Amino acid sequence: MTSLTAGGRLAGQVLERLAEATTDAPGITRVAYGPGERLAHTMVRDEAEKLGASARVDAAGNLYLTLKGRNPDLPAIVIGSHLDSVPHGGNFDGAAGVVAGLAVMAELVGQNMQPARDLILLATRAEEAVWFPLSYPGSEAALGLLKPQALEARRSDSGRTLTEHMREEGFDPDAVRRGVAGIDAGRIAAFVEVHIEQGPRLVAADVPVGIVTGIAGGFRYVDARCLGAYGHSGAEPRFARHDSVLGFADLVTGLEKEWDALEREGHEATITFGRVESDPSQHGGSRVLGELRFTLDVRSADAAVLERIEARLHALFAEVGARRGVTFEAGPRFTWEPATMSPTLITRLDCAASDLRMRVPHVPSGAGHDAATFAAAGVPTAMLFVRNENGSHNPHEAMDIADLDQAIRLLFRFVTDYDNLEQP
Amino acid sequence: MTSLTAGGRLAGQVLERLAEATTDAPGITRVAYGPGERLAHTMVRDEAEKLGASARVDAAGNLYLTLKGRNPDLPAIVIGSHLDSVPHGGNFDGAAGVVAGLAVMAELVGQNMQPARDLILLATRAEEAVWFPLSYPGSEAALGLLKPQALEARRSDSGRTLTEHMREEGFDPDAVRRGVAGIDAGRIAAFVEVHIEQGPRLVAADVPVGIVTGIAGGFRYVDARCLGAYGHSGAEPRFARHDSVLGFADLVTGLEKEWDALEREGHEATITFGRVESDPSQHGGSRVLGELRFTLDVRSADAAVLERIEARLHALFAEVGARRGVTFEAGPRFTWEPATMSPTLITRLDCAASDLRMRVPHVPSGAGHDAATFAAAGVPTAMLFVRNENGSHNPHEAMDIADLDQAIRLLFRFVTDYDNLEQP
Repeated sequence: MTSLTAGGRLAGQVLERLAEATTDAPGITRVAYGPGERLAHTMVRDEAEKLGASARVDAAGNLYLTLKGRNPDLPAIVIGSHLDSVPHGGNFDGAAGVVAGLAVMAELVGQNMQPARDLILLATRAEEAVWFPLSYPGSEAALGLLKPQALEARRSDSGRTLTEHMREEGFDPDAVRRGVAGIDAGRIAAFVEVHIEQGPRLVAADVPVGIVTGIAGGFRYVDARCLGAYGHSGAEPRFARHDSVLGFADLVTGLEKEWDALEREGHEATITFGRVESDPSQHGGSRVLGELRFTLDVRSADAAVLERIEARLHALFAEVGARRGVTFEAGPRFTWEPATMSPTLITRLDCAASDLRMRVPHVPSGAGHDAATFAAAGVPTAMLFVRNENGSHNPHEAMDIADLDQAIRLLFRFVTDYDNLEQP
Repeated sequence: MTSLTAGGRLAGQVLERLAEATTDAPGITRVAYGPGERLAHTMVRDEAEKLGASARVDAAGNLYLTLKGRNPDLPAIVIGSHLDSVPHGGNFDGAAGVVAGLAVMAELVGQNMQPARDLILLATRAEEAVWFPLSYPGSEAALGLLKPQALEARRSDSGRTLTEHMREEGFDPDAVRRGVAGIDAGRIAAFVEVHIEQGPRLVAADVPVGIVTGIAGGFRYVDARCLGAYGHSGAEPRFARHDSVLGFADLVTGLEKEWDALEREGHEATITFGRVESDPSQHGGSRVLGELRFTLDVRSADAAVLERIEARLHALFAEVGARRGVTFEAGPRFTWEPATMSPTLITRLDCAASDLRMRVPHVPSGAGHDAATFAAAGVPTAMLFVRNENGSHNPHEAMDIADLDQAIRLLFRFVTDYDNLEQP
């Protein structure tokens, strides 16, 4: 730990203070457009301003912290991630990337170095889809790309719209609706996001940092239902049942067989039933269930794989429905596209790693990230993953600050090498 | 409908008034020891008192309406059922049996007949296990058999104990605890319960009334859990998951295979998952679920079948747990014994049916009933089922008053033939 950079030490301190301030046992909670996210934005802004960065906030509440370059006319390097979390999540998902950018700034200032172009640390809003059923509304609004109807999406805990929550936090949803951007995509030379890995690949490979090759796309049914008929558990014989639980179990089993087949053929995908709920006003211990609600989340970096799973899903709805005397209602569907990282930026990161004698493997991202929005908008985009145990979206995520410090070193090298920087 | 008995017309009127007074769309709700049950008891008491019956209420709130016989020293004939319902249930489950007894009384009074022995109409309390996780606490208390710890059971909607709810309704849980009975089992010549059939057998056989041969026993796990680990749906690869949903689906599928095998071998049983719930404070659309709670209800008239299913259940807990990296916690278990109906009373009912030229088949009861408590206590016990569509424990149960009237005719004949009754 004595070998941490000054930036790494600052990152660790800010993360600790964040965890303390947003504890919600088990884990931490930073609701999108809620008090935890607001507090995190304020904390990061204060730290960046101490380093001499200038702050501004866009219409959607995204925060831009700019360290002036020698030539502000050049497109900027943007380092960014989000500061919200899932309920009872871990402290590092999102925040680690923001403080990594802060640490790079601290290193530049500490070493009295001024890059050629502006370095912007971007803290976005509302990345976690658990709050609004949307993909990256914060970073979409930053680029002026958020669709007007997205502003009517309702937050899962409050039931109120994104518009209302933005306004309540003092932002300007009307400007967001008009497509007023916080930053011009054409003015970004590179967008780089540092994020904890949410899978186990870096742990398995025993390395602290990885370079992301691409971000999976996917589709999600947020309120699907298996509808049967309520009945008496003792009196309703098997032949007469329309049992939602049996129908749901068949669907799960059938879809997992498809997953099995895909993996045997060498494809990557994930299939997750993320919520399963009978109606508390209807059930008892002694009723055959007539309704079971669930969410289904499917992801892959390969659009053909997504299509194949979705086709199987709808075939199963029909097959299981006929066999079990139930019907499936898929309900609202939302999708997000796979995103490719910039080969040029990946090469630059490879070179920086080589200079630093770091072994930095290439890994895929199954989870979605703000970086996907920038990549989709044509901005050269890259991501670094930091080793992390126990996955994320749970209070047991475990990243070592020493590992984050390796990402900070790599990113610092990437930034300082970007224009063959000179000492001021 | 012009052919209804006077008793049948009264039964229909009381049922209509009950439905109006306890509507809770969809269906009706009469919470055990709640306002709907209280109202139903008052309504039935008023009607019986108009017929000249004397009323008394025991320590647990069970209601006894006695029409004096010519020789009150003889053990009584008791006709009884319950007046509570499941939430959003149908109007007939329980209440049809109580008003059938009321109708028999009305026929006796209307025809100016006095049986040899007392006829007691018993309206019990709290038969529906959805309220308290107990088997027939009302009728058990009537016989002084309710176990003291049962009084600490908590009502599912209020979270308060049976003791508290009894006291709130003005009854005497301390006397219940001391085993003070409302009626002496040795003073009952016959207990007869009329109830809607909750399965489809009488509908399939196209007859209005059946004689019950026996009541299934069973076991129930009211709060079982499949425990895995929460994880990120996109980032957690299949090999690393501990997915509660996949574990649960395997359990459902495995147990249904056993059910299949049992039916192929000619055994009868029901297996029902009556509640399935992920934790709303933990889930989102994008998390692998680390916990799924469920109830499991298993019934059969054959104790060996119950044992076999339970053994398979625990084997599946271990097998699926090992395969999926999850654990199952069975949680509290409660059981109820199968009950055999009195062959002598079945013969008497067969004879009455024959005299009336009614075709009355013998049918099993998969559901539990207050009658099981009386049978277990050694009281000669019988049950009549009335044809009913769409099962029970749901708002769509559909009994025809003309069918109930057939049960009333049969029961009236049974009562009046019981001691070769003379005209007074």
